[in-house]
Amino acid sequence: MAARDTWQRGQRCGWPLARAKLPILRWLPHYSLAWLQSDLMAGLTVGLTVVPQALAYAEVAGLPLQYGLYSSFMGCFVYCFLGTAKDVTLGPTAIMSLLVSSYAFHQPVYAILLTFLSGSIQLAMGLLHLGFLLDFISCPVIKGFTSAASITISFNQVKNILGLQGIPRQFFLQVYETLRRIGETRAGDTVLGLACLAALAGLRVMKSHLPRAACVEPLAARVSHLIVWTSATARNALVVLFAGLVAYSFQVMGSQPLTLTGSIPQGLPPFQLPHFSMATPNGTIPFQTMVEPRRTITGLTLTRSCWLWALPTSWDPSSHHIPSRAALAAVNAQSGVCTPAGGLITGTLVLLSLAYLTSLFYYIPKAALAAVIISAMVPMFDAGIFRRLWRVKRLDLVPLCVTFLLCFWEVQYGIVAGVLVSGILLLYSIARPAVKVSEGDVLLVQPGSSLHFPAIECLRDTVCSYALTAASPPRSIILDCCHISSIDYTVVVGLRELLQELHKHGLSLAFCSLQEPVLQVLLSADLEGFQHFSSREEAELCRGAEAGARGEAPSTSSSESLLLPEGLTQ
Amino acid sequence: MAARDTWQRGQRCGWPLARAKLPILRWLPHYSLAWLQSDLMAGLTVGLTVVPQALAYAEVAGLPLQYGLYSSFMGCFVYCFLGTAKDVTLGPTAIMSLLVSSYAFHQPVYAILLTFLSGSIQLAMGLLHLGFLLDFISCPVIKGFTSAASITISFNQVKNILGLQGIPRQFFLQVYETLRRIGETRAGDTVLGLACLAALAGLRVMKSHLPRAACVEPLAARVSHLIVWTSATARNALVVLFAGLVAYSFQVMGSQPLTLTGSIPQGLPPFQLPHFSMATPNGTIPFQTMVEPRRTITGLTLTRSCWLWALPTSWDPSSHHIPSRAALAAVNAQSGVCTPAGGLITGTLVLLSLAYLTSLFYYIPKAALAAVIISAMVPMFDAGIFRRLWRVKRLDLVPLCVTFLLCFWEVQYGIVAGVLVSGILLLYSIARPAVKVSEGDVLLVQPGSSLHFPAIECLRDTVCSYALTAASPPRSIILDCCHISSIDYTVVVGLRELLQELHKHGLSLAFCSLQEPVLQVLLSADLEGFQHFSSREEAELCRGAEAGARGEAPSTSSSESLLLPEGLTQ
Repeated sequence: MAARDTWQRGQRCGWPLARAKLPILRWLPHYSLAWLQSDLMAGLTVGLTVVPQALAYAEVAGLPLQYGLYSSFMGCFVYCFLGTAKDVTLGPTAIMSLLVSSYAFHQPVYAILLTFLSGSIQLAMGLLHLGFLLDFISCPVIKGFTSAASITISFNQVKNILGLQGIPRQFFLQVYETLRRIGETRAGDTVLGLACLAALAGLRVMKSHLPRAACVEPLAARVSHLIVWTSATARNALVVLFAGLVAYSFQVMGSQPLTLTGSIPQGLPPFQLPHFSMATPNGTIPFQTMVEPRRTITGLTLTRSCWLWALPTSWDPSSHHIPSRAALAAVNAQSGVCTPAGGLITGTLVLLSLAYLTSLFYYIPKAALAAVIISAMVPMFDAGIFRRLWRVKRLDLVPLCVTFLLCFWEVQYGIVAGVLVSGILLLYSIARPAVKVSEGDVLLVQPGSSLHFPAIECLRDTVCSYALTAASPPRSIILDCCHISSIDYTVVVGLRELLQELHKHGLSLAFCSLQEPVLQVLLSADLEGFQHFSSREEAELCRGAEAGARGEAPSTSSSESLLLPEGLTQ
Repeated sequence: MAARDTWQRGQRCGWPLARAKLPILRWLPHYSLAWLQSDLMAGLTVGLTVVPQALAYAEVAGLPLQYGLYSSFMGCFVYCFLGTAKDVTLGPTAIMSLLVSSYAFHQPVYAILLTFLSGSIQLAMGLLHLGFLLDFISCPVIKGFTSAASITISFNQVKNILGLQGIPRQFFLQVYETLRRIGETRAGDTVLGLACLAALAGLRVMKSHLPRAACVEPLAARVSHLIVWTSATARNALVVLFAGLVAYSFQVMGSQPLTLTGSIPQGLPPFQLPHFSMATPNGTIPFQTMVEPRRTITGLTLTRSCWLWALPTSWDPSSHHIPSRAALAAVNAQSGVCTPAGGLITGTLVLLSLAYLTSLFYYIPKAALAAVIISAMVPMFDAGIFRRLWRVKRLDLVPLCVTFLLCFWEVQYGIVAGVLVSGILLLYSIARPAVKVSEGDVLLVQPGSSLHFPAIECLRDTVCSYALTAASPPRSIILDCCHISSIDYTVVVGLRELLQELHKHGLSLAFCSLQEPVLQVLLSADLEGFQHFSSREEAELCRGAEAGARGEAPSTSSSESLLLPEGLTQ
């Protein structure tokens, strides 16, 4: 099999190996001033999106807002050294935040432990080469999950737009409580929230209708184009800034109709190991209780999401798997980023905002952050997927719908159930492969795909049911193996038993079109009565000649054919 | 796909349907006196083996001995109506007993609940058509499990041969305790046990060297042949009877050097529903505690075993899956059984022994039952499997060894671990199928087997790594799909992304040898830039002509090829 990463194919040792393992070595030696300029510009633009989003995602995760910023800068720095795709910025995503929220219970200590465990599991899976297991999350499951998540995350923010407090986390309870308490809506929050939503939607539309910079000729036009482009791109920061100014004005005037974020501690928390147990007024919560099975599922799911969304080895902006981060990557690409060094600038911006801007974050209205989240989530809902699947492959609607519906109950259950359902469909197609049977003077049986151990019982039954039915005369049987690329011991045993059973009834079975590795396995197994031909035609010719030599009329009745074995097995 | 059962293929309705569902209707109308004679003889012979084995297997399961008999007659009667294979006798097996022992804790109420749950799960799986999941237990797992079971079950009986009591159930503790207390050996039990073992082995050897009845001509010789054959076939009953007589003589003489079975209640227990909770001196044990997860694994495993060993739809005496029952079936076949009615006789014999012989069972020495079990278990150990797997398919040694070794710790863990390991190997081969790549003027990529969703990411990376490497000139790519029999939506999405990515780099991808269903799916997905040819030759010809028309020298450097996209995507 070919190596997965293009860059690694030519590796030998020394410098090439170092370049393969530390991608920064590929671009750092060639770094130029022009690149620095582009990276600076791109890093700043992305930073203006990342900072408000980080605050908003912390709100989704149910954590104090500063934790969104804490988790936003580390990835930028690490990815600068280890990353291969210049467009990618690592950091929290809405979906990761949603998964964390179902585990963290508003307590950062849980979120930190979860992060540590996820990392450990990722590392272990990487070392054990179990990464391939992640490929078993199929596209319908991911689509069902992201579509459901875009609805639940958006609705989760409706309470902040309406200014309601104390709404439960579970989706159905949330809908019920929000509708029941709709009378308690705070006008200030709602007006501001809707205004922010409208502004974000407007800027988004504006950006999508903006002509390409290259088409605009005069300098003045170019400058105004740049201003519009920047404000549309950094629209999250603009909207949050504007909303903060409104809130600050109300504060100065002495009346505050808006729900504010509140104080955020300045600077960074001390670096330390995660807490593996937690002291509470009612005693210490041990590690086992913190990591009880139901929650660990979340952790594992999160691991998988991190892997899928945060560390793509060959990242491609056209991929639909990573919607929220894809938006950031698009910003990066449009800002003309040249190397992963852009991430350094973004990370530094986040650190600077932690150092100097936390006192200003106090005035950010929650409704503005809610608008930022909702406008990021709505495009993630893919209504067309149901129609597309109906047209292309209807069976895949089953995992899609299971995931989509169960995700409203609890996100992790939806993912697990979707993976199980698509796994069962996959296993079924492996255990019961299509087998083409052509009846004629010779019975020709051709498995449609490779033969794995769960399929052999079914193949045996198919062959026997055709070869030994009362209705059909005794015939030679040819097993056309052209689609079989490898077999295992269970299949070998099954074929031996098939040969014996057919032999008992006086029938012979010939193999044809065997691929080399399959032939080797069958020869080493030393099957009794094993015959093989290089092509189907040769096998048919030979079988036909044999039948002729035996002088059997093809119309021999079935009862006679069933009496044959005694004579032949003696 | 073909129907699995030959009999069911011609079914329409009415009588044929009834015949298909109730196999007794196939043979009962033709029943004759000659058949009755044969069935009577066979039923009696099998019964003489079943009764002592039932007592012995109850001992293995750690239950009161009468439970072995209770579970031996019901299957015989049911199978007479529903069974298709005349040779099969349903009833307890050594392996089922071993699995029960790890769940029942010497309490029949647990064993009865387990039986009920197993049956319910089987019924549910049957109704949900999930039976195919049982095919995922591969041959190496079954071999590892039966080989380990033959050792643990045999060693479990060594304590009865030595006359030791209070030995723990777990294998390693058992070995340790048995060796530590070897000094407490009771001479009487040991001498009798070894004598029984020797007698059983001798009779077994004698039977295998017995000439065929047909070869013996004079009447006297035929009668003596029949006597030898019967005593060799019913050797279990003979040995137990002999040992019981020895024990009875000692009892009459007033001294008893042997450990006896003890009293067994006469008749049948009342028919009633299983207990779903259990009253103990310390309070009631609720259902949840009785069915705690670790034990449920046993139950599920047992379900599978029942299915595999007890209810084969197309049973074949040559199958190596059902060693202990296979021995019984061989007895049945050699006794000349004609219809499943033989089971009726066997069941009646068991019932009669429960009604009239229980007072005699008191005198059966435990050492004699231990000898019966050991002599039935030893042939189940298949030492050759390790060598065969080494020769035929070395990778399958992994699930074999994992199952074999873990079964000594706890049987159910061994099976679960073996299934997981062989499942991971299977999933890996599905997620990373062999892909044949032929380089030339045209890059030809051919997946070796069907393309399921976990494999598409790997295929994409393989194609890209070959097509986009710096070392190779830009070329057309042909994807030969001749081995692909079906694809799902995830694969379609992956192929669309591959087409886009290649198009971005100015490369084109053509499909060839598409099977009809695959072509339909791809056409309905409406892929951009999708081209297909009926054969590889046609595709190569067409690609070659195109390359010539573009007038590109094949030596175009890679940097130029990477600059192409802008020009082409506009």
